[in-house]
Amino acid sequence: MHRFRITELNEGAFQLRGQERDHLVRVLRLRPGQELLGFDNSGREWLARVEKIDEDCVTCSILAVREPQVEARLQAYLVIGLTKGEKMEWVIQKGTELGMAGLLPLRAGRSVLRLEGKKAAERTERWRKIAVEAAKQSRRVIEPTIAPVSHWQEIKRLLPEETQCLIAYEGETSRRLLAVMEELDPVKPVAVIIGPEGGFEEAEVAWAEQSLKALPVSLGSRILRAETAALAALTLVLGYGGDLG
Amino acid sequence: MHRFRITELNEGAFQLRGQERDHLVRVLRLRPGQELLGFDNSGREWLARVEKIDEDCVTCSILAVREPQVEARLQAYLVIGLTKGEKMEWVIQKGTELGMAGLLPLRAGRSVLRLEGKKAAERTERWRKIAVEAAKQSRRVIEPTIAPVSHWQEIKRLLPEETQCLIAYEGETSRRLLAVMEELDPVKPVAVIIGPEGGFEEAEVAWAEQSLKALPVSLGSRILRAETAALAALTLVLGYGGDLG
Repeated sequence: MHRFRITELNEGAFQLRGQERDHLVRVLRLRPGQELLGFDNSGREWLARVEKIDEDCVTCSILAVREPQVEARLQAYLVIGLTKGEKMEWVIQKGTELGMAGLLPLRAGRSVLRLEGKKAAERTERWRKIAVEAAKQSRRVIEPTIAPVSHWQEIKRLLPEETQCLIAYEGETSRRLLAVMEELDPVKPVAVIIGPEGGFEEAEVAWAEQSLKALPVSLGSRILRAETAALAALTLVLGYGGDLG
Repeated sequence: MHRFRITELNEGAFQLRGQERDHLVRVLRLRPGQELLGFDNSGREWLARVEKIDEDCVTCSILAVREPQVEARLQAYLVIGLTKGEKMEWVIQKGTELGMAGLLPLRAGRSVLRLEGKKAAERTERWRKIAVEAAKQSRRVIEPTIAPVSHWQEIKRLLPEETQCLIAYEGETSRRLLAVMEELDPVKPVAVIIGPEGGFEEAEVAWAEQSLKALPVSLGSRILRAETAALAALTLVLGYGGDLG
């Protein structure tokens, strides 16, 4: 059944407007009487029926509401140095499938991709659409947040206050990510910080250790591409947290 | 430094022919005196110097040999139902980065992609090239084996004899992959069996349980695409085995 993001919830009904409306009407061609599912990032999911299709909105009546146990209990964030090409899209899509709570694109020292001002805002909007679509396909009820493209200092402000940070660093040879998971508080959020191609500069790691209390961790003895490292780290964190199986 | 796969190892030297030679000469344009690294899937790595470039081969003198600790200790195999598009290529590339020992493409009941005869052989060759390239980029010294496209019965014959099999199945709701890892023998190979889009048929899972002694495992409460499931399962197996960090 098709899924839609609800922004206007009323008593017994909700309206879909803008892109959600257009997608329903023009692409999926749903008609009055047909059923669909809606979510609003609260954790709830609504079974609803299309009642009325107007020029600017679709009205749906609510048939049932439930709270599916589909979201990860562990709030896992991915901080990732801007990387080129489609890698960010790929990471957003698969990170959403895996169950991440949010992704924070970081202007890392060695990021080849530079995004500023309007271009950064446009790219962030595109990434948010990818996140919503991926959430729908994964049948999640809370879409992951995609933060604005940020510098290190902004990352600190954007992460939830008690976030336990792990920074993947090739210079770290002994501290294993899974071993660190055993020492963390299981109810507080975890953020994995992944560098761009070329990795992090020593000064960045030192700053993260100092200001984010980040623990450098190793992802093993093989060279991982940035996107592989991002997904591997998320998988290990969510897997250890009991959320991937 | 560039890496090459060695097939002709002699006393104090080796020859590179065919595609390895052509890549060295025409693409990378290495010249006598330049250094390179070679591997032959034995676990060893050779530091060598180009001595002589001929029409059909390049002769390299060996400067040093070592056994880098770069390969995973746990032999992790991925059995994956044939999937469409570029997904197999991604999985081979990223599975190689993660450290898998081999990949076995499976003709699953619900595989939309059908590969037979000559087409299957050609595709397998292409996948093997991708595996070699990914091994080089990851600085691995043993390239993962890519099996011929196989039916279930052939999978049984192709996997090492003591392989402990785990089959990812949406019908399994309680047995978690990481929990199962605790019960496995850490020195024997592990294979994760991942279905195509559409998953496995009940009869396939039953056969795998019966004939491969496969344990059905859950990869969590969210829908994962085949390629995401494959990489997540490999990551959890290799991560638990201590090979990813």
